[in-house]
Amino acid sequence: MTAPKTASPDIRSLAQQLRAGQRAALARAITLVESRRNDHQAAARDLVQALLPDTGSAVRVGITGSPGVGKSTTIDALGMFLIEQGHKVAVLAVDPSSARTGGSILGDKTRMARLAISDQAFIRPSPSSGTLGGVAAKTREAMLLCEAAGFDVVLVETVGIGQSETAVCDMTDFFLALMLPGAGDELQGIKKGLVELADMVAINKADGDNIKRANLAAADYRSALHILSPRSEHWHPPVETYSALTGAGLDKIWQRILEHRTAMTASGEFAGRRREQQVKWMWSMLESRMMARLRADASIRAKVKRMETDVADGRISPAVAAEQIAEMLR
Amino acid sequence: MTAPKTASPDIRSLAQQLRAGQRAALARAITLVESRRNDHQAAARDLVQALLPDTGSAVRVGITGSPGVGKSTTIDALGMFLIEQGHKVAVLAVDPSSARTGGSILGDKTRMARLAISDQAFIRPSPSSGTLGGVAAKTREAMLLCEAAGFDVVLVETVGIGQSETAVCDMTDFFLALMLPGAGDELQGIKKGLVELADMVAINKADGDNIKRANLAAADYRSALHILSPRSEHWHPPVETYSALTGAGLDKIWQRILEHRTAMTASGEFAGRRREQQVKWMWSMLESRMMARLRADASIRAKVKRMETDVADGRISPAVAAEQIAEMLR
Repeated sequence: MTAPKTASPDIRSLAQQLRAGQRAALARAITLVESRRNDHQAAARDLVQALLPDTGSAVRVGITGSPGVGKSTTIDALGMFLIEQGHKVAVLAVDPSSARTGGSILGDKTRMARLAISDQAFIRPSPSSGTLGGVAAKTREAMLLCEAAGFDVVLVETVGIGQSETAVCDMTDFFLALMLPGAGDELQGIKKGLVELADMVAINKADGDNIKRANLAAADYRSALHILSPRSEHWHPPVETYSALTGAGLDKIWQRILEHRTAMTASGEFAGRRREQQVKWMWSMLESRMMARLRADASIRAKVKRMETDVADGRISPAVAAEQIAEMLR
Repeated sequence: MTAPKTASPDIRSLAQQLRAGQRAALARAITLVESRRNDHQAAARDLVQALLPDTGSAVRVGITGSPGVGKSTTIDALGMFLIEQGHKVAVLAVDPSSARTGGSILGDKTRMARLAISDQAFIRPSPSSGTLGGVAAKTREAMLLCEAAGFDVVLVETVGIGQSETAVCDMTDFFLALMLPGAGDELQGIKKGLVELADMVAINKADGDNIKRANLAAADYRSALHILSPRSEHWHPPVETYSALTGAGLDKIWQRILEHRTAMTASGEFAGRRREQQVKWMWSMLESRMMARLRADASIRAKVKRMETDVADGRISPAVAAEQIAEMLR
């Protein structure tokens, strides 16, 4: 193995400030990770490598839910609950649509009114680097930086669409799906991706007149989850109700997250999963780098585009096209 | 685009014999596709490219089911039913375990007693090339060769484990999941992968005393599938019962497959999915080629292995490791 290069003095000092928990240093470090400039990317690699021994100890929770389910208010309430328990909470987001729309699910910090002004919380909107792979890679590294800066709970929010849920699941220890009671078809949440991913389903708005409906929805989700194979034989995804408005049930949700960690640690799945995730990140970063090589040159980019069309139209076989692209990568 | 090289005289004549429907030529062509020798692989690419205009018209059906469900007898019965209707039927398999065990789910042709001796059928066991990606790539190309040789139905069998179902789904138009009635937990078939993949669930052994149990199982599967989002808004996966022993219900199964094709063609999804599959094959073949480069050299192979361990153990960041591997690929 080639030993990683020693970091520059600038990077060493940034690492030091970050380790000391300086928020400005953390923000600057994430900006470095998100930059597309080659020199910045090299510096970011050195920085993350230097901080690696200080990472890995946070509870990493992915949170998904359709728009309107109350993700922001839930994260605000859960975050404040955790801060009251003595935790430091970082909130990140994976939202590949933010590149297109210019907005981000976390763009408006006012949606997390209490967390936004707490000095025990750090909120960072989704990077807007175009592809899901790019966004996910930058969020993973931002998560490591937050851990090195002393945040011991990392909440990663995602919109409930497409592959972004898988990406967030692949970077967290626990995947929480938020639902609403009585939204017409009770079980619309049991869709393709979610079935495989959720470690817990939590039903929001269990307050006031809604408590009964929330309990009914919980029963429906419970019986639906019952017929699906769980991801681990040591954890059957529970269904809980809570209220982001009153805070009722947040303690139960956190309790379940900790129980999951205990069960996974005991069975060895916790360490195994973290190891697998890291190796998977490595291969996906390699893939991104190779794709970047294909995109870097305009004439190669055009050739690859044309080749994709020719393959789709059935003019060139996938094997011949792959061979020609492989030659370009030499 | 670089124009594909013109095929050698040998390849041209093999292509001609294959187009004429000569079984020996088809068998030889698939052997060429499966060979790991570089010159064979180059010849196979030329062959598939030359035959490309003659491919694509078959009905491609993936078939999965746990061991014991009667996959072989079902394929034997369904295949003979189709041959009686005037079709020519090719049977392929994706079984990554065959490389390890030396056996193959299709290895024993006697399990398809009638198809094995029909001159309107062609049966080929799973290639045994080690990785799922390799096995799938070779089966995809074998499928194209079968189509060029005039087989208008291709059945691709897979064992109901791991990622092989996804691989088969990615190379077929219709994915059929076979189940048994009354196997303790009726709904054990509704597991992670299947939920996303099946275009139809068919319950075998609906004969004699079992008919009632088969109908009960069908009702259970129907209500379970009802709560899951279908893959297409134009197709809700039906649940049917049949008997591979008596042949009852096979006509219904084939009818559903044709209805699916009609619905998908009308909505444009059929063409779209085929195009997507082809482009996906191209990228996955490129990935295999790049991985093969990393495996070709023993010292590089050892370095990559060590790097994976270092990343898993948290000694090197995924980004640094990816950078170093990318350098090796230059």
